[in-house]
Amino acid sequence: MSFTTTLKVRFGDIDHAGIAYYPNLYHYLHIAFEEFFENHVGIPYPDLLDKERVGFPTVSVTTDFDEPIRYGDILTIRITVSRIGISSAEFLFEAAKTEGGAPCMVSRQTVVAVDMSTFRPIPIPPRLKERFALCSPGLFPGRA
Amino acid sequence: MSFTTTLKVRFGDIDHAGIAYYPNLYHYLHIAFEEFFENHVGIPYPDLLDKERVGFPTVSVTTDFDEPIRYGDILTIRITVSRIGISSAEFLFEAAKTEGGAPCMVSRQTVVAVDMSTFRPIPIPPRLKERFALCSPGLFPGRA
Amino acid sequence: MSFTTTLKVRFGDIDHAGIAYYPNLYHYLHIAFEEFFENHVGIPYPDLLDKERVGFPTVSVTTDFDEPIRYGDILTIRITVSRIGISSAEFLFEAAKTEGGAPCMVSRQTVVAVDMSTFRPIPIPPRLKERFALCSPGLFPGRA
Amino acid sequence: MSFTTTLKVRFGDIDHAGIAYYPNLYHYLHIAFEEFFENHVGIPYPDLLDKERVGFPTVSVTTDFDEPIRYGDILTIRITVSRIGISSAEFLFEAAKTEGGAPCMVSRQTVVAVDMSTFRPIPIPPRLKERFALCSPGLFPGRA
Repeated sequence: MSFTTTLKVRFGDIDHAGIAYYPNLYHYLHIAFEEFFENHVGIPYPDLLDKERVGFPTVSVTTDFDEPIRYGDILTIRITVSRIGISSAEFLFEAAKTEGGAPCMVSRQTVVAVDMSTFRPIPIPPRLKERFALCSPGLFPGRA
Repeated sequence: MSFTTTLKVRFGDIDHAGIAYYPNLYHYLHIAFEEFFENHVGIPYPDLLDKERVGFPTVSVTTDFDEPIRYGDILTIRITVSRIGISSAEFLFEAAKTEGGAPCMVSRQTVVAVDMSTFRPIPIPPRLKERFALCSPGLFPGRA
Repeated sequence: MSFTTTLKVRFGDIDHAGIAYYPNLYHYLHIAFEEFFENHVGIPYPDLLDKERVGFPTVSVTTDFDEPIRYGDILTIRITVSRIGISSAEFLFEAAKTEGGAPCMVSRQTVVAVDMSTFRPIPIPPRLKERFALCSPGLFPGRA
Repeated sequence: MSFTTTLKVRFGDIDHAGIAYYPNLYHYLHIAFEEFFENHVGIPYPDLLDKERVGFPTVSVTTDFDEPIRYGDILTIRITVSRIGISSAEFLFEAAKTEGGAPCMVSRQTVVAVDMSTFRPIPIPPRLKERFALCSPGLFPGRA
């Protein structure tokens, strides 16, 4: 199973070369990550941070930009949780210009659960872990 | 007297129309504001916020964009403090593409001194007020 | 009549003072402007720019930030076209945290129709003008 | 040999967790990349794009964020060209909070030379290749 959200590429996110500025594409992936918490995990990310005092800063990123992304494109961003550890998890983001189309951007990002007061790693809370696992590629083989 | 700083327009700050995206130009003015604190007022803005717990959120803005700003332009941004009240002050930002040239963007912004813990207005600390006053247009008539 | 869209304040749009960074709020207003073209005017802004070669750069802005905007807020942005001239128009953006609630940000922006090839002002195309007029406050008095 | 530039972390680049929002850190790396062209290669990036019609879009990225970066930090960004191919090159960006200090962010980015009119890959122009090679780690062993 995976979580999917769509985002429109915006006028101001284009760069001088006429394509989406890649730092802004990471902003899009983070917006998808926020939607994942709100709509799949079941807790809005602002509440997770401010009420439960748990955050997930990104510690490593590997990305392929396979195709230029342009103004007017609508990105379908699919999120799979490709690895779940004690306090870290790897998120796989695949963005395509059409639902089910070839990816134009693929990013693997490792995030670490931290206590927002100390910024120290903590075990991923079980309730979140369960929801992450539902977006794991292994759960339903061949359906990642 | 006034405070002046220069900034290069960046690749990623251009929009789909091929000119600087105006929200990014406000980011440039804020960077100039931070430089004003560090280099004219004599206290880096991070220290003002985190150590002295005083901030200056913007509460109103009036701006004319007189000319498109493009990639490769270098902006000279001049700051004058055009009004100093009890807890608020008006900053005048004039950006030009050459030192002393016609402005391509003029913005008046009212900021309010707040206690960073409560976000409530406070009187502008006297030490800051003095430094603001040195950038007041009235101080040296004809030299604003 | 007016046009209304809603936008979530995003994690990355917050600043070091813990509130929405005001340049990012202008980005939100521009996104609302893009939605206005797509959903009210009936032509997506990318198509207007690239196919019809008409754009609407912002030439002046007046804004009041009435209240800090925070992560987790959902902004309802209402657009009224408060003045329609030959080649320019004034857009009024009113953002509130709840539909019909007190505005937390009010911005008046003058935009000018330009030929995207020359960046010279042109008369607002009649088809757009008609659609703008439907969001004019005068059309249905008392219902702006 | 390597190229080094310094950048101040800005107020608006902080996120709701109180640290630099990682998409904004990629913007910083791109600014360093622009400085590299202007100050090491000897051609400002705007000129390269608009006059010589050559650009270097990023096609893949691998990054470790080793430490949170905060408001007030000044980043020293060191650029090495770690691989030079026919039309692609790999740039290594190492950011530290003090000159010579432990890196807080390390990013490897593959860029591809393209003709700006067609966005098709082209061989890296020899003049640029020569300058890239001067920032290659192999040139002066032990001095990368």
